[in-house]
Amino acid sequence: MKTVMVLGCDGYIGTPLTLRLLLEGFKVVGVDNGYRRVFVEKEMNSYSATKILPAATKNSILKKLGKFTYHDFDIACDKEALDDLVNKTRPDTIINLAHQPSGPYSMTSGDHANFTLMNNIIGTNNIIWAVKRWVPECHLVTLGTTGEYDHYSNIDIEEGYLTIDHNGRTSNELIYPRRPGSVYHVSKTASTYLLDLLVRSWNIRCTDIMQAVVFGGYTPEIDQTKIYTRFDSDEAFGTVLNRFIVQALLEEPLTVYGEGNHQRGFIALNDSIQALMIAIKNVPDKGKVRVWNQLSEWHTINNLAETVKQVASELNIEVAIQNIPTPRNEVTEEHYYNYKTDILKSLGYSPTRSIEDEIRFMFKLLDKDHIQNLKNVVLPEITWK
Amino acid sequence: MKTVMVLGCDGYIGTPLTLRLLLEGFKVVGVDNGYRRVFVEKEMNSYSATKILPAATKNSILKKLGKFTYHDFDIACDKEALDDLVNKTRPDTIINLAHQPSGPYSMTSGDHANFTLMNNIIGTNNIIWAVKRWVPECHLVTLGTTGEYDHYSNIDIEEGYLTIDHNGRTSNELIYPRRPGSVYHVSKTASTYLLDLLVRSWNIRCTDIMQAVVFGGYTPEIDQTKIYTRFDSDEAFGTVLNRFIVQALLEEPLTVYGEGNHQRGFIALNDSIQALMIAIKNVPDKGKVRVWNQLSEWHTINNLAETVKQVASELNIEVAIQNIPTPRNEVTEEHYYNYKTDILKSLGYSPTRSIEDEIRFMFKLLDKDHIQNLKNVVLPEITWK
Repeated sequence: MKTVMVLGCDGYIGTPLTLRLLLEGFKVVGVDNGYRRVFVEKEMNSYSATKILPAATKNSILKKLGKFTYHDFDIACDKEALDDLVNKTRPDTIINLAHQPSGPYSMTSGDHANFTLMNNIIGTNNIIWAVKRWVPECHLVTLGTTGEYDHYSNIDIEEGYLTIDHNGRTSNELIYPRRPGSVYHVSKTASTYLLDLLVRSWNIRCTDIMQAVVFGGYTPEIDQTKIYTRFDSDEAFGTVLNRFIVQALLEEPLTVYGEGNHQRGFIALNDSIQALMIAIKNVPDKGKVRVWNQLSEWHTINNLAETVKQVASELNIEVAIQNIPTPRNEVTEEHYYNYKTDILKSLGYSPTRSIEDEIRFMFKLLDKDHIQNLKNVVLPEITWK
Repeated sequence: MKTVMVLGCDGYIGTPLTLRLLLEGFKVVGVDNGYRRVFVEKEMNSYSATKILPAATKNSILKKLGKFTYHDFDIACDKEALDDLVNKTRPDTIINLAHQPSGPYSMTSGDHANFTLMNNIIGTNNIIWAVKRWVPECHLVTLGTTGEYDHYSNIDIEEGYLTIDHNGRTSNELIYPRRPGSVYHVSKTASTYLLDLLVRSWNIRCTDIMQAVVFGGYTPEIDQTKIYTRFDSDEAFGTVLNRFIVQALLEEPLTVYGEGNHQRGFIALNDSIQALMIAIKNVPDKGKVRVWNQLSEWHTINNLAETVKQVASELNIEVAIQNIPTPRNEVTEEHYYNYKTDILKSLGYSPTRSIEDEIRFMFKLLDKDHIQNLKNVVLPEITWK
């Protein structure tokens, strides 16, 4: 029985990943400090649009579903607890989802920026030193983001590395140029370089996944166990499509930042879990970070809003689309956008859920009474300016 | 009278920069927490080869030389103290030298790595939020390092940005690809992306200097005031030429890591100060980080050792050169190495001090009795492996 340590097991992705691992017979060592729950409630004055269980209740159910242990500590602040747990449990795979995952949150103040940098970078560093010390054969899976790359590069976005021509010379293989769009994305970029360095230096086994925006709330295991994952719609932790879904159900206008013509990559929650399972089951060689781009499709934000509007209209919900000034410093015009996704496909990945599927699933799942108080939390107040 | 805030005013570069600024009539707001003194003494069991004054004595002399105030706090851990001081003193320029500047030190343990990441990245972040809040017109000067760049790229190393051809398309201007060689270099790389993001987002004025290895101990102000800057020769804080100089005077073999055929860029201390003064006096436009490469010449490490040997021999000191296994994970073979340095030249920079000049100056300055106990601190024990 293989052991997977899931850091951030209580989050949006951590919850369905833990469920799938347990139901497929993996032993799961879960770690979380509950920060996501606290941040959404205390700082965003928001709550999950799905009805999620209290952590303790959820963890006892998980323990009945399979081999699950839960450990409540902070991987960035409590290096020794992490070190001890890696030593005691000797996982075959460690997957790090214990990030502060929000761009807007990271831009709220200098303290929020510091917290994000510290949590995400020091967290990554603590993990890799623990791997080196206790489990040098372990496969470390880390989550980067497509938002690290320079979106305005005007060239193909390769999977982690590229070779270029410059001043009549051809380069060796380089790390794909970065241009992070928020302090959160800087923290992920720093983790990319830290991993590249230490994986080379210490001959470690590592997959770093450049994941696009995740949407939806369906996985077969969620549907079966009714252990729902959180579904946030506030401006910091709600990803764009999830926000639109909640706005539509509230019969509020879908708020598109800026002109909405810029494209972004998307992947359904179920397909993110599919891809993470592929990473866990296909162990890379040591000594070089395996990087892949993890997305199923790309759309302009306008296109996304139109899709939500259309599916809503089939269900007799009429919604408006409203363009509001962007709080971000994104270039909102159209630009060249071509993500390579060959590696994941070569490992058998194939998308299972469309945007329409997830909109329909969530429209059915979400309880209108439960989400009523979310009306005031979706509009942006945090600004990059 | 212009005010310059020098963060890290007690260090190797901070000391001569403060002297020059004061003697040229600038008002200097100096900040330091004395960590460099502590680290070298307590952790490296070493000391400066030059006879440096205790901080308090030095600071009272500086106060007589010009408009100088000294503030003892940690810019990474004490965000509020930094914020208050920026508010109260409203500097025209802030220069950040308050780094943990050693690659080997950052690789010593997970805790040393965390300290380096935290100190250097959070320090940078605290400064830029203080600039945004209190002095939006201020010119922020930050010190990157040539070691951030991918040394093995096989293409010209441009000044911060480049345009490339890839798959039949020409890119927009990209940030030059990075591949940091130690956790310290990762911390500087993270600062590069953080600055790029926030300077664009908030329309700030910033120069980020990619500085090569600094050597020597001469500036006219040091020679005039006899306030020497520290000169370290331990494996963490002693840069390679400075270590060779101390080894030669101790009549110990010059220890070259690996084959010694890899090239690195170098700049004399006096020319580093010259270049920093050029940065301070030539304010860039807002909204884009001005990046330049700051080096005078490049050499293989073998070449450097041969030069020290030759100058020593003129003074009837016979030294051997010894190749020892490299503790680093550098590619030590020869590789393409062509640094562009046009920007600094276009602003009037011209090197004043050669490697031979500095070897001769230091041979004369250093007291053989004083350095006797440095014999045991120069050999490497920290390993990247």
